[in-house]
Amino acid sequence: MIYLDHAASTPIVESALNIYIKSLREDFANPSAAHKLGKSSMKKVERARQLILKSLKGSKKDQLIFLSSATEANNLAIKGIKLLPSDRVHYSVGDHPSTSEPVKSLNSQLVEIPLLEGGVIDEAKFLESLDKDSKLVVLSHVNNQSGNHYDILSLGKKVKDKFPNIHIHVDGVQGLTKVETNLSSLIDSYTISGHKIGAPKGVGALFIKDGVEVETQLHGGGHEFGIRSSTVNTPLILSLCEAITAGLEDVITNNKKVKRINSLMREELEAADLGITFPFSLDDTSPYILSFLLPSISSDIVLRHLEMKDIYVASSSACSSKAKGFNAGFDAMKIDQSKHKFVLRTSFSKDTTTEDIETFVKEITNIIKEIKRL
Amino acid sequence: MIYLDHAASTPIVESALNIYIKSLREDFANPSAAHKLGKSSMKKVERARQLILKSLKGSKKDQLIFLSSATEANNLAIKGIKLLPSDRVHYSVGDHPSTSEPVKSLNSQLVEIPLLEGGVIDEAKFLESLDKDSKLVVLSHVNNQSGNHYDILSLGKKVKDKFPNIHIHVDGVQGLTKVETNLSSLIDSYTISGHKIGAPKGVGALFIKDGVEVETQLHGGGHEFGIRSSTVNTPLILSLCEAITAGLEDVITNNKKVKRINSLMREELEAADLGITFPFSLDDTSPYILSFLLPSISSDIVLRHLEMKDIYVASSSACSSKAKGFNAGFDAMKIDQSKHKFVLRTSFSKDTTTEDIETFVKEITNIIKEIKRL
Repeated sequence: MIYLDHAASTPIVESALNIYIKSLREDFANPSAAHKLGKSSMKKVERARQLILKSLKGSKKDQLIFLSSATEANNLAIKGIKLLPSDRVHYSVGDHPSTSEPVKSLNSQLVEIPLLEGGVIDEAKFLESLDKDSKLVVLSHVNNQSGNHYDILSLGKKVKDKFPNIHIHVDGVQGLTKVETNLSSLIDSYTISGHKIGAPKGVGALFIKDGVEVETQLHGGGHEFGIRSSTVNTPLILSLCEAITAGLEDVITNNKKVKRINSLMREELEAADLGITFPFSLDDTSPYILSFLLPSISSDIVLRHLEMKDIYVASSSACSSKAKGFNAGFDAMKIDQSKHKFVLRTSFSKDTTTEDIETFVKEITNIIKEIKRL
Repeated sequence: MIYLDHAASTPIVESALNIYIKSLREDFANPSAAHKLGKSSMKKVERARQLILKSLKGSKKDQLIFLSSATEANNLAIKGIKLLPSDRVHYSVGDHPSTSEPVKSLNSQLVEIPLLEGGVIDEAKFLESLDKDSKLVVLSHVNNQSGNHYDILSLGKKVKDKFPNIHIHVDGVQGLTKVETNLSSLIDSYTISGHKIGAPKGVGALFIKDGVEVETQLHGGGHEFGIRSSTVNTPLILSLCEAITAGLEDVITNNKKVKRINSLMREELEAADLGITFPFSLDDTSPYILSFLLPSISSDIVLRHLEMKDIYVASSSACSSKAKGFNAGFDAMKIDQSKHKFVLRTSFSKDTTTEDIETFVKEITNIIKEIKRL
């Protein structure tokens, strides 16, 4: 099997799986229980919280709220900030629906972050669009469709220099452990997903900068500092901690390695002379995601042919794979609507090999030639 | 170890753990992916959904929404129903905070469900309190502190006979697989927790009766019929399904078995002549929970002494174990406030043995005698 859909969900890394299974058996008590089984379970959670916070390079007073998924984290941040109807919220329609949909549910003024061709933010226009009513800016660390990698610190600084009180929320799902992450004081909240970085599905976290207030969305027993009620999930939290800390150890080495994989794929696809084009440049993107345009062939068809060869890719974001044809994200990235259905996304892990790429290119070459002959 | 805190969290049952670990490795793809790894994962989820719905004896058109916890399910139901400020919501302050807290967050008229001594609902007064503005009734199937078991079908019928349009939401966390569950058309929504019935932490479900509308609370990719966005968690869902179906197979046999355990504990504690009293009768409660009043000794102290003997119980609900002294639930159940801190909760699993009970009674007898001597 050649699995090139890691941006949708990636297998659990062995060390995170081992820690998880051990904790599933050991930490069966409720961490809120008054007895020592509960207390020792809670102690492990607090240790994991501190470890993760430290690895994100935030300050000691920053908060980390454990929850069930990145979608929940994005909802908590975006809908949890106090906003007036006159407040302006800046977001990109090209970002993942777990940020754009909560934004659309707000009763405030929505402002699109302008993109240039290639999915890059039009910084000048964006900064110009901010005003005194701007209260929230929602960014992706790495866009899940194009792979565009935004320099959140540089952008954050420019925003805060103009309007220091704007809350900057970053969806870090495709960024953390893939590209360098340094949550200096410029970032007010940052979303983490477990299953995109080698932890099991069902866990995520929201980083909240010291002093930032987020309104409770799950009411109940008052867990997670009263912000997110629900039984604290020691096994999933320990596994998430392992996936993050292990992933961050080699973030630069792995990024370089995957960059070579991504380059190789681009070169070989160019060399195969199939008419494939690359709307997103490697310089502007995370190397873990490579989306390209097929030569007037629907990506769904190619996806089917590839899966017959036991090769797995994405024809668009897994989360919105039901929406065919028009794609608001690609539209914002200035890709002509007629071409949206030709976008194929491949996404890698640090363990993707050059052999995987060579087999992939060989097979997709055969498939495209076959389809064109028909 | 003698673990008598199953109502707070219970170990994963072996069959549910095996299915879980297998699926953790196999079903790593995103179930929303367009390729066959995603599709086969989603197929398993849909099969689990149908199996659970069938086992709950609802109709074929009823819905089941998978989510991360019972707290989330209670929040989704209670805050997801359209309510006007003039609408009346009937709830019990004695119920779990994951129902009472979402209720308190509503902008509607809150009405307490009156309880009698022993934690039983004062049916006559309750039915009298309903009127044409009553829109939501929130009940527990089994109360997590007292163990009171409410006949939700009989109560539901009496409510619907007077006002057919009232939405009846039931928190089934301590009920499902412990007492018989038959979600006939009288129940509009029903909350299920995984980790209270032998599935891992991090999964729950909300049963929603055909035709009932519940507003989305997690916005994003549109999963779970658009009601609950977040990557669908095949491994946790399959494990939940196994825990439910296995648990329901022997619900009556196990209930009888645990009833004998509960009776034995009551008899032996009475016989020990320690001054322990039983505010909640076995006839009115689920046998899985036995809460009793210590003879003017703080339950926290006894809990500490018991844990030194490797015996684990609860001094109050795990979820609110931080709130000392006054307990709104016990207050509603007519227990004098001066006695709230004397309540000790034991809770059983189908595997709790008579030996466990005998050891427990022996140890608590020694502890109480020792404390009284000092």
